[in-house]
Amino acid sequence: MDFFQVKTVQQVKEIIRGFAPLETEDVGLEDAWGRVLAADLVVPGDLPPCDLSTMDGYALQAKDSFGASESSPALLEVTGEVLMGEKPSVAVKPGEAFKIPTGGVLPEGADAVVMVEHTQFIDEHTIQVYHTVAPGENVMQQGEDLKAGERILEQGLLLRPQELGLLALLGSAHVTVYRQPRVGIISSGDELVPIDATPTIGQLRNTNSYTAAALTRQAHALPQFLGIVKDNLDELRERLAAGLQTCDVVAVSGGSSVGTRDLTIQLIESIPDAEILVHGVAVSPGKPTILARAGAKIIWGLPGHQVSAMVIYMTLVIPSLWRLAGRRDWEGPYGWPLRAIASRNIPSAQGREDYVRVSLHEEDGTLIATPLFGKSGVISTMVKGDGLLRIPMDSEGVQEGEEIEVWPF
Amino acid sequence: MDFFQVKTVQQVKEIIRGFAPLETEDVGLEDAWGRVLAADLVVPGDLPPCDLSTMDGYALQAKDSFGASESSPALLEVTGEVLMGEKPSVAVKPGEAFKIPTGGVLPEGADAVVMVEHTQFIDEHTIQVYHTVAPGENVMQQGEDLKAGERILEQGLLLRPQELGLLALLGSAHVTVYRQPRVGIISSGDELVPIDATPTIGQLRNTNSYTAAALTRQAHALPQFLGIVKDNLDELRERLAAGLQTCDVVAVSGGSSVGTRDLTIQLIESIPDAEILVHGVAVSPGKPTILARAGAKIIWGLPGHQVSAMVIYMTLVIPSLWRLAGRRDWEGPYGWPLRAIASRNIPSAQGREDYVRVSLHEEDGTLIATPLFGKSGVISTMVKGDGLLRIPMDSEGVQEGEEIEVWPF
Repeated sequence: MDFFQVKTVQQVKEIIRGFAPLETEDVGLEDAWGRVLAADLVVPGDLPPCDLSTMDGYALQAKDSFGASESSPALLEVTGEVLMGEKPSVAVKPGEAFKIPTGGVLPEGADAVVMVEHTQFIDEHTIQVYHTVAPGENVMQQGEDLKAGERILEQGLLLRPQELGLLALLGSAHVTVYRQPRVGIISSGDELVPIDATPTIGQLRNTNSYTAAALTRQAHALPQFLGIVKDNLDELRERLAAGLQTCDVVAVSGGSSVGTRDLTIQLIESIPDAEILVHGVAVSPGKPTILARAGAKIIWGLPGHQVSAMVIYMTLVIPSLWRLAGRRDWEGPYGWPLRAIASRNIPSAQGREDYVRVSLHEEDGTLIATPLFGKSGVISTMVKGDGLLRIPMDSEGVQEGEEIEVWPF
Repeated sequence: MDFFQVKTVQQVKEIIRGFAPLETEDVGLEDAWGRVLAADLVVPGDLPPCDLSTMDGYALQAKDSFGASESSPALLEVTGEVLMGEKPSVAVKPGEAFKIPTGGVLPEGADAVVMVEHTQFIDEHTIQVYHTVAPGENVMQQGEDLKAGERILEQGLLLRPQELGLLALLGSAHVTVYRQPRVGIISSGDELVPIDATPTIGQLRNTNSYTAAALTRQAHALPQFLGIVKDNLDELRERLAAGLQTCDVVAVSGGSSVGTRDLTIQLIESIPDAEILVHGVAVSPGKPTILARAGAKIIWGLPGHQVSAMVIYMTLVIPSLWRLAGRRDWEGPYGWPLRAIASRNIPSAQGREDYVRVSLHEEDGTLIATPLFGKSGVISTMVKGDGLLRIPMDSEGVQEGEEIEVWPF
């Protein structure tokens, strides 16, 4: 007996693909961390633009050092000094060397740098060189870091610290990125009370708003608390409509179980232009999830259970936020999974994806994953957990000792 | 010839341990993501505080369903209804059932819930039950999530989204956390120009400020741009002194190579109460790193090379920030490493820790790590990289085909 026309995760993601990325905006580079690049970045010119020394030492013609050693040093005349940030105006000739700092521009004529540690002054103008250097040694060649014309960053890339460094190097004081999705968060349920209230028996403090907001921030999107709403159509509609005015996505948790799902369906149907796209997903926990569109905006109906809501937020809502944020790899999961050994059998029903919270520990260099069972509302399994194990739809579960993939959270 | 009294990573961390966590402050739960808990959290009372239904259905005495099946249903009289957020005032007697929603309080007398999908009304007051339920089935027991008195969160824990959910559940509208370190970032070097300037030959745009600021934000600390300073003692001292007024940590990149390190040493010695603790670390890249204290504040002298500066920031500066932020596992590395197979030999010198940038790809279910070689200033190796491979001090390197640990970045 199945009350839901459940969709698979892959089907839900195909539906999410139907939403377009938000518009773009320019931000200062200092604010670009975690943002998504809206255009390819092509290297405008070779980097470095000329040969540079990678050591403090002396620029020379490498052949002048050939055969040099501690016992048989080469003698070179120091005829110049390269200053940081200046291009040497004269060339190094055979038998000569220029003092050069790390990062200094290699003078014409020179093709290598001998480290200062491998030299010694014997008089005011002459050094002994104790090491042979090969042509190119201790030199960063023009274009060695980046070649002009190379497409180094792709549209849709999430900007990490090193990408900001690269953009700085290339002079991108402003970057064109996609706007961050604004996510309105509503917790619905007659049993819910604010976190600073003392619940009577049967009441529960509102947890989902806080986990959803933190997950939203983790995904570099902008959460907006829209509070607690009773299971009342008029109040819910007013709050949802207000949320859709200011937000790109509104997530309503609670109200999607059998008892109240008609309410959520009625709620969405009462919003002009709203269309229900998904009503039930083949995921456990989190089956009674609803996805709807209102114009270009996304409405999520999430389970009220704390853990179900978190699992769906991590596995489906976040991908939808990254889709709006223009991220190329929006579908997730993000990063590389850990490989671990299951410490016991983990049964799973065919026909749905199971997400099992696991704790991890290392034993003799092997990572061991232990499932944390508990009813779906049990938030302690998330708190004690280190990651999620995904059991695919066509699997009946995991055997003790089997290698599995865990996405850390 | 070794110019540095180099310290090992372990020695540097022992020195970092000498810095005390910052003072604590109270923040609203909505702002607590990524903060570090400053006191243990003990569960004040059982959660849930009473038995709850985990399904929409009927609360009953399990024994009344024993033997029930599609062909031989049990008959029960529906004598009440549990409303969300209310404690039922009457008990369920043998042969009776109460309608109950997910999250509803189990009435006295009942010890299980049958799902609504497994029942059918045969008249206004009577349901047929088609499934046998065991005692406790579809019920979350009192204290099943959290038992009163359990120490569920430890002082020094980094707060993830799920910890915020737990704190919400327990009514912690405000949380006592450690203050976030404020980190002043100075880039020094005569060759440096701002990112919106066009460098002449030999000049370089200031990249280190942007990577350091982003890494700081990633670590939930607060970066403060202190700009570019020429290699000039007076200017540097003025900027560093100003930074130490408002920041807990000041990181000066550049000026730590042989050519300018005397300047950095002079600079630190010119600050009242400043003491140099580390001058050179057994790490590649990043050897010419300086760590000093000025009272309770930390001064880092970082290499000017972009990649060296990033590697030291990730492996040493971030641990020092987490130490100030009170994090229990401040020493890092954070999270679990990925296990991958080296695609080729990676040589390393004994006596230092090598950090090699690697790119990752999967081949037939195996994660393959390929080292990205390049001189230490080559930021493209960070941009093309997926993580860092650490080669310990006592190793001469990694063999092709060897299993290695990679920390994703």
